[in-house]
Amino acid sequence: MSTELAELGAVPASWTRRHLLGLEELSAEEITTILDKAQVFRDAMAAGRQKTPLLVGKTCVNLFFENSTRTRTSFSLAARRLGADTIDFSASTSSLSKGETVIDTAKNLEAMGVDAMIVRHRTPGTPKLLAENLNCSVINAGDGAHEHPTQGLLDILTIRQRKGRIEGLTVALVGDIAHSRTARSNIWGLKKLGAHVIVCGPSTLVSPRWAEIGIEYSYSLDAILPRVDVFNLLRIQFERQYGRPFPSVREYAHLYAMNRDRLARTKGDILVLAPGPINRGVEVTPDVADGPHSAILEQVTNGLAVRMAVLWLLASGRR
Amino acid sequence: MSTELAELGAVPASWTRRHLLGLEELSAEEITTILDKAQVFRDAMAAGRQKTPLLVGKTCVNLFFENSTRTRTSFSLAARRLGADTIDFSASTSSLSKGETVIDTAKNLEAMGVDAMIVRHRTPGTPKLLAENLNCSVINAGDGAHEHPTQGLLDILTIRQRKGRIEGLTVALVGDIAHSRTARSNIWGLKKLGAHVIVCGPSTLVSPRWAEIGIEYSYSLDAILPRVDVFNLLRIQFERQYGRPFPSVREYAHLYAMNRDRLARTKGDILVLAPGPINRGVEVTPDVADGPHSAILEQVTNGLAVRMAVLWLLASGRR
Amino acid sequence: MSTELAELGAVPASWTRRHLLGLEELSAEEITTILDKAQVFRDAMAAGRQKTPLLVGKTCVNLFFENSTRTRTSFSLAARRLGADTIDFSASTSSLSKGETVIDTAKNLEAMGVDAMIVRHRTPGTPKLLAENLNCSVINAGDGAHEHPTQGLLDILTIRQRKGRIEGLTVALVGDIAHSRTARSNIWGLKKLGAHVIVCGPSTLVSPRWAEIGIEYSYSLDAILPRVDVFNLLRIQFERQYGRPFPSVREYAHLYAMNRDRLARTKGDILVLAPGPINRGVEVTPDVADGPHSAILEQVTNGLAVRMAVLWLLASGRR
Repeated sequence: MSTELAELGAVPASWTRRHLLGLEELSAEEITTILDKAQVFRDAMAAGRQKTPLLVGKTCVNLFFENSTRTRTSFSLAARRLGADTIDFSASTSSLSKGETVIDTAKNLEAMGVDAMIVRHRTPGTPKLLAENLNCSVINAGDGAHEHPTQGLLDILTIRQRKGRIEGLTVALVGDIAHSRTARSNIWGLKKLGAHVIVCGPSTLVSPRWAEIGIEYSYSLDAILPRVDVFNLLRIQFERQYGRPFPSVREYAHLYAMNRDRLARTKGDILVLAPGPINRGVEVTPDVADGPHSAILEQVTNGLAVRMAVLWLLASGRR
Repeated sequence: MSTELAELGAVPASWTRRHLLGLEELSAEEITTILDKAQVFRDAMAAGRQKTPLLVGKTCVNLFFENSTRTRTSFSLAARRLGADTIDFSASTSSLSKGETVIDTAKNLEAMGVDAMIVRHRTPGTPKLLAENLNCSVINAGDGAHEHPTQGLLDILTIRQRKGRIEGLTVALVGDIAHSRTARSNIWGLKKLGAHVIVCGPSTLVSPRWAEIGIEYSYSLDAILPRVDVFNLLRIQFERQYGRPFPSVREYAHLYAMNRDRLARTKGDILVLAPGPINRGVEVTPDVADGPHSAILEQVTNGLAVRMAVLWLLASGRR
Repeated sequence: MSTELAELGAVPASWTRRHLLGLEELSAEEITTILDKAQVFRDAMAAGRQKTPLLVGKTCVNLFFENSTRTRTSFSLAARRLGADTIDFSASTSSLSKGETVIDTAKNLEAMGVDAMIVRHRTPGTPKLLAENLNCSVINAGDGAHEHPTQGLLDILTIRQRKGRIEGLTVALVGDIAHSRTARSNIWGLKKLGAHVIVCGPSTLVSPRWAEIGIEYSYSLDAILPRVDVFNLLRIQFERQYGRPFPSVREYAHLYAMNRDRLARTKGDILVLAPGPINRGVEVTPDVADGPHSAILEQVTNGLAVRMAVLWLLASGRR
């Protein structure tokens, strides 16, 4: 094993999870364990050590009932860089069209000797349902508007790298909070690690009820600009079929796009994140997306590191 | 190599086949050789030895002209667990839409250095056609209503594991016999190994001509219940475009579903198989599918072992 | 490493390219370097040495915005035989439908730690655009009607193997020159290596302006038959949406198909190539396609060798 990975050590005795279903259920200590291990993989990647055969002989399956490119690819590459075999199973070519239940599909895959099953489904709770019915590890790769824990973790890891800490930071999640699993995973994770979280967007997409659990909400990006350390700019998911929550894209960009003018009214040393794929000119202008405050591509690299850490923590001890 | 695989030994000198096109053409000895070798791989898997690099440097291609999930995935994983490289080639993204013949497509793939080609096509005889025109090994993964030999082998292996033998057992294949390649492969394999086979289903889907080759036929599942050791419940393939062979799904389930009531009228220590994906409530009720008589998930695991054995027998000696 | 590969040696100091965008920009020496290295891989394949782990720890991504089977499969297999990890990214399942730009998609993939990106796009210049914006190596796998350099290289390697040289040969490219990137890559490569090139086809598909750069053109295959050493029969791409450049397929075949009769009017020891997938009876008749003058399947095998050489030359020295 490379020297960069020497400090990875064994899976900590304190780690007892078999599944990763959401950040809501994790303790601050568990989140920190994942982040710390991910950082080791990240450092090894930066040193040019791509392959670490910690999961040779294991099999990871992507069970995706919704289209995805980057998440599926990221998990798949993470598994292979750990030496695991991978299976890609997408709903469009699946037995589901033949009337099979989701649980039966998953159990059939598991019977091929699967160690970790990475699940994306539009119905919230599907990963939990599978976790209750399978013996292998289940990783939630996005379930409806519920959670997308590895996205939350990679966002938080990126913040920690750039700002050196999470505690005490003010992090604004901007955009479609109502339909965003990324927002939810960020909220739980950031809150547990001591950040102050603001959800910000049109009133049709931001519920005042967030205040009930200590999350600040705002309908005006301009109003919160001077207080925020990190802006996480969520996508407006035009491809989704919901009503028109705002008059037009132009109107949305006018009120919520992070651009040069708004940047000038921030603290200055702020960080801009976006889960991508970004709509240039909508939630962020090109000069900001490609500028020094942006960590958008670092998020992608950290995503791989987070997924390697999660797969290793969940699957390496099995059998 | 693992101790579990020590007893695998070399490919037997008696094994001279280059292709696996169907069980009709195999001798009882050849079928037993595959089952015995598959059992070695199965035992190794149960002992947690997933990877056995017996085909490193070999390339296996899935050439599927019909959609498939579990068969394709099973072959692909079997090949990779043996250390082979795999190619997935599906018709929807293929050159076939550009007017290329099936043989040209296959020859082009072969020219990339392919050792085993796994073929599924709706036209019976396509694997045989390719076997006559290629130098690599050809494995039939389903050709129309003709044969699906690895499915037959995995069914038979599962029976042998649970019942300890094949000879002398009474095995009922229930459902759409007329359109089922799984039925045909089971019939040839079971008959060669000395089982008594009953084909059972609606008269529109079960031909009396099976009697000409010593296969019993019946239109009544209830009538044969007390005599049967193994029930193999075939899918009614609703997605296929053929006429309506029975009045309704409800009617079919009423007459042919394996349920608690019918189970109570059997010998007792019976085995229930289903090639899947199963339609819960149609050919089998959930309590039976998930009950102690069911070996449905063991079939999936055995499918991997059978395909590892077949790939190893056909491809390891090449070059 | 195998003895067959001992003569591969290190990447030559004279090789300074990071990308392969087209043959137009390469020198004769650079083309010869690729051909020589490809021949080493080809010889190793012929000796049964499929795997040469020269790119272990590297990642190659297929970024295909147009459907492809053989080119994508060939690159993918080439990468895996060199020990690299591979990612297949096709536009149909991609984030492009979500409004992301091509550059953003590519940069996101690159951020996962990609060493070589293999790009196919209908817009000429897309690989160049990406090369200017990425740090990884970019390989053009076909950009509109511009270039398809590895296809040109494999055609030229096949000619060199069969005829022993390129210089002084007369090579006819027959068919749809106007829309063919394969034709362009052949023209630049063959010209640099000293061949005489004739472009031949219907006047609607062959421009007289090729004469301006020293390429002969002809509308009559019969007229040039006796002077040609190598016929490269391009596909008429019926699936493309352009006007009707000739009255009918029958008319095209009558004038331009390579058949037994035309073969008899050639020099005799000629070579027939076709980039495939071939339309039997259109650009070539079956007896010629499967006869001793045809090197169609050798082209496929050489394609793998060329791609291994290109990936090795571009990606092995990175980091």
